[in-house]
Amino acid sequence: MPRFVTNDKIDTLYDAMEALGIDVLVITDSEDHREVNMRYLTGHPEDASLFVDIKNRQTILVPWDFQLAQKYAEVDQIVDVSEYNGSVIAASAEIIKSIVSSKAKIGVLRSIPYYFLKTIVDQITESEIIYDPMNIDNKLDELRATKSPDEISKFQKSFHISNQLVDEIENNLMIKWDRSSFREIDLAVFVESRMRELGAMGVGFETLVASSARSWQIHTYPRAHPELPLYRKGLALIDFGVEGDWLRSDVTIPFIMGTKTDKMKIISEAVEEAHYSAIDALKELTYLHEVADIADNIIEQAGFSMPHALGHGIGLTVHDSPGIRKKPVHEALLASWKEIYIEKGMVLTIEPGIYEQDVGGFRLENDVIITSKGPEVVTNSRTITIDF
Amino acid sequence: MPRFVTNDKIDTLYDAMEALGIDVLVITDSEDHREVNMRYLTGHPEDASLFVDIKNRQTILVPWDFQLAQKYAEVDQIVDVSEYNGSVIAASAEIIKSIVSSKAKIGVLRSIPYYFLKTIVDQITESEIIYDPMNIDNKLDELRATKSPDEISKFQKSFHISNQLVDEIENNLMIKWDRSSFREIDLAVFVESRMRELGAMGVGFETLVASSARSWQIHTYPRAHPELPLYRKGLALIDFGVEGDWLRSDVTIPFIMGTKTDKMKIISEAVEEAHYSAIDALKELTYLHEVADIADNIIEQAGFSMPHALGHGIGLTVHDSPGIRKKPVHEALLASWKEIYIEKGMVLTIEPGIYEQDVGGFRLENDVIITSKGPEVVTNSRTITIDF
Repeated sequence: MPRFVTNDKIDTLYDAMEALGIDVLVITDSEDHREVNMRYLTGHPEDASLFVDIKNRQTILVPWDFQLAQKYAEVDQIVDVSEYNGSVIAASAEIIKSIVSSKAKIGVLRSIPYYFLKTIVDQITESEIIYDPMNIDNKLDELRATKSPDEISKFQKSFHISNQLVDEIENNLMIKWDRSSFREIDLAVFVESRMRELGAMGVGFETLVASSARSWQIHTYPRAHPELPLYRKGLALIDFGVEGDWLRSDVTIPFIMGTKTDKMKIISEAVEEAHYSAIDALKELTYLHEVADIADNIIEQAGFSMPHALGHGIGLTVHDSPGIRKKPVHEALLASWKEIYIEKGMVLTIEPGIYEQDVGGFRLENDVIITSKGPEVVTNSRTITIDF
Repeated sequence: MPRFVTNDKIDTLYDAMEALGIDVLVITDSEDHREVNMRYLTGHPEDASLFVDIKNRQTILVPWDFQLAQKYAEVDQIVDVSEYNGSVIAASAEIIKSIVSSKAKIGVLRSIPYYFLKTIVDQITESEIIYDPMNIDNKLDELRATKSPDEISKFQKSFHISNQLVDEIENNLMIKWDRSSFREIDLAVFVESRMRELGAMGVGFETLVASSARSWQIHTYPRAHPELPLYRKGLALIDFGVEGDWLRSDVTIPFIMGTKTDKMKIISEAVEEAHYSAIDALKELTYLHEVADIADNIIEQAGFSMPHALGHGIGLTVHDSPGIRKKPVHEALLASWKEIYIEKGMVLTIEPGIYEQDVGGFRLENDVIITSKGPEVVTNSRTITIDF
């Protein structure tokens, strides 16, 4: 199983870390802390620590499951933790001591769990911890933000299954499902079952289905309700993702249920205009935050405001880099903000939405690949209107 | 929505933190760092920071989604982050400054993401960070390790649905499913769909289905394979969990597929003996690690060794406290080890297993409540034999 990062990109990572004077970069993934760079840099799915030895340009993996790593990890060395009583932390402590000197500069990612950092600090007492999100995390985000031809090709299965699902949902919503008894959860179960019948490795993320009773909430909990009926007048939606072949899709279909009131019309048209204008703007503009401005302005002109970002990259995790959001206002956020160029190879979602307690929430989300010819929309989500 | 921790327990938390001299305890949960104590202490599902003000015995929540918090969180104050440009971190920084003095002692959990800790340190420059897993994390683990009567009653839905599923799986495996075409993923989809038809809020964790081709791996990836057939001679298994009403079940059913060879017989009998002996031992013994010894010894006497812990608590997360494992050998682990009494109110899984590359893996897992009368097995998993 090859890693996802290309050889060229990993060279630029080594170069960038070397320029920062870092001796070893530490990356860890565990049940309570999922770190996408583990999969990206190694191909190993989960539960491991990775030591990127910058000077010797080699990678050492300490996985919880040695056999899994032998199957999936493309690294220079795999350590068997069974020799350390099965503890990744204990093994990691020994490995760190063996590969770096006492005066080593050890790079860490911003969200490293503190106990893991402590383990390093306690073992290599004279080492220096390099915490530098602007240069370390941003560098990794930048590498992941554009996809290689291999990654683009792996995405196709997720897009293909997503598109099949959008068509089937429309068809079934119109004619098959019973309008009095069909619940939010039934739609989630349909989508999650059907995507795997169609060959997906897994569910990209827990499917969110919200009838107009609660679609005005941005987060719903539970994600799909086991009791609430789906067919209820107002605005409803489903937000789902497919993990076809590791790389994930993410689409949202908005439903107009029952008679379309004036307010529902204004909301749906504003969101659709924001959606399509933002996609067009990906061709014309230079920076992603300018695209977010386009969508926000349209929604504001309609008399609403959007309580979330316009979109985000997709990849090995559903919320991959880059984020598509406005330039921040808050000082603390502005200090770590950097404009992001729209670049060939980016795979993005565009998902403007408006949420109103009286009629519900309306969000339209499609996935877009930035090609040399401009944005290519690769999913087929659209408003579905069910009149009753 | 009430929080899960009882009033009595939260008082003991305040007392314990006060005894450590802590002014405020900080707990944070985000997409890349799930922290069960958020749900446990507040009822709020996810994506928030919690400040437990020890001196004033009050809780302040900074949620990403204010409306969700209004619905779910049982706290003294909810902060609206829309006033901080939607940033939980920016809002948290302000809140910390407002509730603690510059010389405050700030308690943190062991897995706090480092950037969040940095935010605190940078804002309250003269504060002291109290990182003390033996007294802080262990205290919370200890509170969660025994369940209140309310929690026990909430568990029932998960147990009920799990038991129904075990029966249906046995029945369908025997007579309904096509032995040549039924894949691992088909069983996962059946279970995940059916549990929600039966009223579950959600899937307790991603269902693991492994035919004998790969059940010898402890972790399988993908969790259930979209191509591999399930009916293949050897040992197979399904490991699934139900989130009926927040609190989760966790069971594993082992399958003996095809003719039972001598080796398959030895493995299945050793695991069954380890399973039932461990459950009996929960009545006789004092400490959990002694129960792990019982199971490990049985498996070792049969000529195998178990590559994982015997079991764990279940609750708002599938791997809740306490862990059921042997006393560690490694020095670094022993330093933070503490024996754990078997106590009334614990809800535990017992899941011994043996994994052999030539015949597959065999694991039998049931859930057990420790009552005043001893262990009560509340799930009905058992070996299913499909002869062909």
